[in-house]
Amino acid sequence: MPLPERPVVVIVGATGLVGRELLALLEERRFPLAEVRLLASAASAGTMVDLDGTAHAVEAFDRSAFDGADLVFFCSSGDHAREHAHAAVEAGALVIDNSSAYRMDQTVPLVVPEINGDTPEVERARLIANPNCSTIIALVAVNPIRLAVGVERMVVSTYQAASGGGRAMMQMLTDQAHAHATGGSGEGRPYAFNLFSHDSPIGIDGQNEEERKLVRETRRIWNDSEIRIAATCVRVPVLRAHCESINLTLRDPLNEDDARRLLQSAPGVTVLDDRAANRFPEPVTASGGDDVLVGRIRQDTSQPPGRGLSLFVAGDQLRKGAALNALQIAEQRIAALRG
Amino acid sequence: MPLPERPVVVIVGATGLVGRELLALLEERRFPLAEVRLLASAASAGTMVDLDGTAHAVEAFDRSAFDGADLVFFCSSGDHAREHAHAAVEAGALVIDNSSAYRMDQTVPLVVPEINGDTPEVERARLIANPNCSTIIALVAVNPIRLAVGVERMVVSTYQAASGGGRAMMQMLTDQAHAHATGGSGEGRPYAFNLFSHDSPIGIDGQNEEERKLVRETRRIWNDSEIRIAATCVRVPVLRAHCESINLTLRDPLNEDDARRLLQSAPGVTVLDDRAANRFPEPVTASGGDDVLVGRIRQDTSQPPGRGLSLFVAGDQLRKGAALNALQIAEQRIAALRG
Repeated sequence: MPLPERPVVVIVGATGLVGRELLALLEERRFPLAEVRLLASAASAGTMVDLDGTAHAVEAFDRSAFDGADLVFFCSSGDHAREHAHAAVEAGALVIDNSSAYRMDQTVPLVVPEINGDTPEVERARLIANPNCSTIIALVAVNPIRLAVGVERMVVSTYQAASGGGRAMMQMLTDQAHAHATGGSGEGRPYAFNLFSHDSPIGIDGQNEEERKLVRETRRIWNDSEIRIAATCVRVPVLRAHCESINLTLRDPLNEDDARRLLQSAPGVTVLDDRAANRFPEPVTASGGDDVLVGRIRQDTSQPPGRGLSLFVAGDQLRKGAALNALQIAEQRIAALRG
Repeated sequence: MPLPERPVVVIVGATGLVGRELLALLEERRFPLAEVRLLASAASAGTMVDLDGTAHAVEAFDRSAFDGADLVFFCSSGDHAREHAHAAVEAGALVIDNSSAYRMDQTVPLVVPEINGDTPEVERARLIANPNCSTIIALVAVNPIRLAVGVERMVVSTYQAASGGGRAMMQMLTDQAHAHATGGSGEGRPYAFNLFSHDSPIGIDGQNEEERKLVRETRRIWNDSEIRIAATCVRVPVLRAHCESINLTLRDPLNEDDARRLLQSAPGVTVLDDRAANRFPEPVTASGGDDVLVGRIRQDTSQPPGRGLSLFVAGDQLRKGAALNALQIAEQRIAALRG
């Protein structure tokens, strides 16, 4: 759906981690907007938020805020999006949903702008789903390789940050680390100086929901039902950037130097691969940045010559893993209109 | 080499992390000994150490301590072991070396007692090498599966603790976490709330030394030059237990239930695989324990039916990853004598 050059923007869930990050990005990227309306739960209504030097009051969620809106970001729960996203569409807005509600809906494009942002389906769409954080971060890094030589199989082990579990999980982690300083341990399941299998429900196949998302969403974004993925998702005591160890089986051979060159010119990717200094992607380096950092690029000799490649990637979970990707979807729509 | 039932024991490097753990284990396991001699660098000489209620003075390293010794544990550096281990052998002792000095020496057995402790080579050996921590922990978990159906390929991503980097690295981690409590960041490379590629030198093949150890040592311990391994070794902000995400390609098919049953009766393994409670191996659960915890046991459907299996394991780096394995090698030698 076309967007005006200066849209009226609504953010649903403006006081959550992703909503706040989206606000910061609107300002940082000088996103052109005519007006912004900030919505949250009744409990958060009245919160004052600064945007470009102007104080904005967060209002309690009400569908009337969709009247005259051009662009609505849902940064609320899946249930909330399922209940209200279509009302925003019917009010005439382009809706970008950060939740998992519509990601597997075949009528709703699931978009990573660098990969599948410029398709007729996306141009026509009035509702677009923003993929899961670990999916976006992996695919931005692997897509250039897939385009060049094809990817048959990925074995992915994640090192995921607390931010994916929301503000409460970040707080639990820092509280526990601080309690440790005075000989305590803090409240909640052990997280500081610990790690645990991703805290999402596990199905009868033994996969947790995060792992299933990585598989299913990748198939949709790449439009490739054949891609084989073995994922293990783990929460580590890190604040806001996810890392992923990725082992690829390539369709056609690719050597390590060519892989590095491909990645160096890939959109949304910064190669950080300094073997002499032992300097590679880390959460602290990725945090607050836009690009997915890619390093440890090396041939995997446990596979036939040229067919195996290993990578280690890091990306900010709240930015490229959520708010930034959503905003880039909107930016691409505005640019498409201009173009 | 046969050991007497109550050997005279020497610990070289008795004040280091592994040496201290070994002392604790001697007491905890009521290891039968006639006498213990504790050696360390001149700087640590004079340190008093308690063992079974008796205070022992640590002495400055001197080869004369090998006179009359039956069993010498080297818990010092590779360089130190290379310089002095053969002197202990020549003095008539069985030497167990924790360093990497002799691990790739084809005349020196590299031993995980549960896997290859009872071979004629080990029985004859006067010098035995203790494998690298991440190798031991992975192989204790995977060996029962290998014995049953064969393992063709392993893709391993590690989540390694600070203890592998010694006391200074553990201190750096806790200091940084504590500094964070007062708004600081602490000294050294960012580690608290961060993670980084394993801090060992990287070769021209792009593999770091830790990854090379995992590959080479596995081939020796399993006596299998064909096993294919893709390893990615990562240091996470955890104190003393390593976790590893392991994806296997099996030679013959094995279903998940049979894999779980095999592991439940395997030596040195505790299965912790509660999907309903989302309770799996974690560093805090593995720390201070003897067994390697194994969970997230599940079929990997990205491989041909029955041929793919994924696991997540955790093991105490200082115990099974170092001191305990070394002590178990000695215990097995004493038991063999009795048997």
